[in-house]
Amino acid sequence: MEPRSRGAAPGGVSVSAVLPAGGSGERLGGATPKQFCAVQGRPLVSYAVRAMERISWISDIIVVVSPENIETMKTIIEKYGHKRVTVVEGGITRHRSIFNGLKVFAENEFSSHLLQKPEVVIIHDAVRPFVEEDIISKVVMAAKEHGAAGAIRPLVSTVIASAADGCLDHSLERARYRASEMPQAFLFDIIYEAYQQCTDYDLDYGTECLHLALKYCKTKAKLVEGTADLWKVTYKRDLYAAESIIKDNLSQQVCVVTNVKETLAQVGFLLPESLKSQIKVEAISISLSKNDSCLQNIFSGQCYNFVCVNDKRWAIQETQELVDMLEKSNIPLLCPVVLILVHLDIPENNSFSIGMEDLTTMKKFARETKKKNILVYGLLIQCK
Amino acid sequence: MEPRSRGAAPGGVSVSAVLPAGGSGERLGGATPKQFCAVQGRPLVSYAVRAMERISWISDIIVVVSPENIETMKTIIEKYGHKRVTVVEGGITRHRSIFNGLKVFAENEFSSHLLQKPEVVIIHDAVRPFVEEDIISKVVMAAKEHGAAGAIRPLVSTVIASAADGCLDHSLERARYRASEMPQAFLFDIIYEAYQQCTDYDLDYGTECLHLALKYCKTKAKLVEGTADLWKVTYKRDLYAAESIIKDNLSQQVCVVTNVKETLAQVGFLLPESLKSQIKVEAISISLSKNDSCLQNIFSGQCYNFVCVNDKRWAIQETQELVDMLEKSNIPLLCPVVLILVHLDIPENNSFSIGMEDLTTMKKFARETKKKNILVYGLLIQCK
Repeated sequence: MEPRSRGAAPGGVSVSAVLPAGGSGERLGGATPKQFCAVQGRPLVSYAVRAMERISWISDIIVVVSPENIETMKTIIEKYGHKRVTVVEGGITRHRSIFNGLKVFAENEFSSHLLQKPEVVIIHDAVRPFVEEDIISKVVMAAKEHGAAGAIRPLVSTVIASAADGCLDHSLERARYRASEMPQAFLFDIIYEAYQQCTDYDLDYGTECLHLALKYCKTKAKLVEGTADLWKVTYKRDLYAAESIIKDNLSQQVCVVTNVKETLAQVGFLLPESLKSQIKVEAISISLSKNDSCLQNIFSGQCYNFVCVNDKRWAIQETQELVDMLEKSNIPLLCPVVLILVHLDIPENNSFSIGMEDLTTMKKFARETKKKNILVYGLLIQCK
Repeated sequence: MEPRSRGAAPGGVSVSAVLPAGGSGERLGGATPKQFCAVQGRPLVSYAVRAMERISWISDIIVVVSPENIETMKTIIEKYGHKRVTVVEGGITRHRSIFNGLKVFAENEFSSHLLQKPEVVIIHDAVRPFVEEDIISKVVMAAKEHGAAGAIRPLVSTVIASAADGCLDHSLERARYRASEMPQAFLFDIIYEAYQQCTDYDLDYGTECLHLALKYCKTKAKLVEGTADLWKVTYKRDLYAAESIIKDNLSQQVCVVTNVKETLAQVGFLLPESLKSQIKVEAISISLSKNDSCLQNIFSGQCYNFVCVNDKRWAIQETQELVDMLEKSNIPLLCPVVLILVHLDIPENNSFSIGMEDLTTMKKFARETKKKNILVYGLLIQCK
């Protein structure tokens, strides 16, 4: 079963992603490189990996880290259940790290097995956790057509050039220039050739992949106007901002779990639809009795709000299993998890009924789960 | 009495400041312009005004706001007790607003009275609340010498130019360019002449004051490397960051109030000095019995931690007055205020003693103030 994203790859191309995460975080002023700083108890890089992982049409996610952080990165992947991720050892500069990441698709020595070379490769920073599927799609589509593409944003400050004496030489007209942001995407063969041809000077002092594609492959990148959420965590204040945004998002996201068939009750399908106009909704249709990998995936995504729609007689067993899974996921350690059990009372469905006894059991159950920081609420909807 | 800053103006020049605060806050995505957004219950512009006001050698602070916000700004000045501030009506662009701000020093029509023209004028954004005296001094000194000066920062992203077809034209080598930030400072006559000579196109589409000084007065601005705290609140995430930084600062700041004379007790002076290595300290020497404007100034600065050093017999009357002033300032509404009463027991000072009775009274007093969110602690230091 494909979790999360249901769309096919834009333009039907095969796509993989490389995330350089080798930076030292000097500008942050702390000992921990910023990509490993915890935001709401979870390392920043894990949010960036998740942003890629949620997109089902991205085949492989290559995370490039410095040699001393390889074990840390592997622990993060295991702890947060990341899938499709390969950890690669980075070089001493950003360009060298990206090049190493690309090599796992083309050379044998960099990975235990050669990964399937994608048509288009996305390059995205590990310290830009809030990237959305929409902009990634646009950049991939543009890369397919133009060979290279990258997200851009308006400049926040005027850019100036200084003379040798430390005085103003000239200032750039702000409207004519843009900040080059991430994600970027390339036809794999183009960016790989650019890296193979570029000089040591490029690899050591350059910062811009679009520039390499232009200089060595004559490929003019298509520039795609991005949204404000593409920003890069650079300074300590950005960690504060990331923390607040993630907290905000948590209260703006709900997961609707349902085992209701469409023929039985339209309402089970209408609920997630109407919620969507208010908040971000993940709707999954599963049987709670199976320990579903899809649910596990959502737990690792740190959703704190769940609505379970059910048209069967209330079974404490199933709810208990869900609570156990939530508890095991460690999510309730950070914030209270809200679990709303919606029971659809449908006349033609004779097997369903909810009595006083059930209500008492449910109340008692809710009291117990509250101790685990999981707040259970019941909602009975009678459909006539 | 000079509050806060004790330094004279750098280079002995007369200095005033203009704060353009006319922006509409489009990029913030909210209805309230960002400079009026509340951060920890206080509008952002008030923090920027305070940053200027704390520096005693800045004579006048001109805040330029759009016509519809003049009353709001006046209310803010009154509420937070800002001094030396003149509110001026802005124009439709940033440059037009700054020009209006400068006119109050040169033309009669823009203010009820013509303000004393400064030798050097600082221009600083209302949405950069964390500027420190050190960088302002450096920029003012450089402006005195070079005619113009401005703070700069390294670029966070690569800057690129796009071609007419929306593709990459070229990227700039990041190391050769800088972001132009604020504060900037100018010899008043230079920047005023530049504004008088510049075209309507400049006034409507330009953004860079340093550019005007260069173009119209052939003055090459000195560029001064600034610190990371010069950043501009631009997006919603920046408001989150500002909030977290201000919260952090509150717990890192203490005000030491003392009436101890140096000849009587070195310790009263050593305490603030040794605290300074740990946190930010404001030390003022006053008599608590007078309702001092200096203390009022500090209350408006939102300091939450106070240490009162005293070598007299503990007088409940004086402490009560301090608590009353704190209460009146509304500071304890947001966070608990901590007030530590330090009593120095000095052998040669016969008038001093603290007995069991005093301690009981103090405990009772502390219980009462706790209800007002003011936490009073007593500390007795015996000097031998």
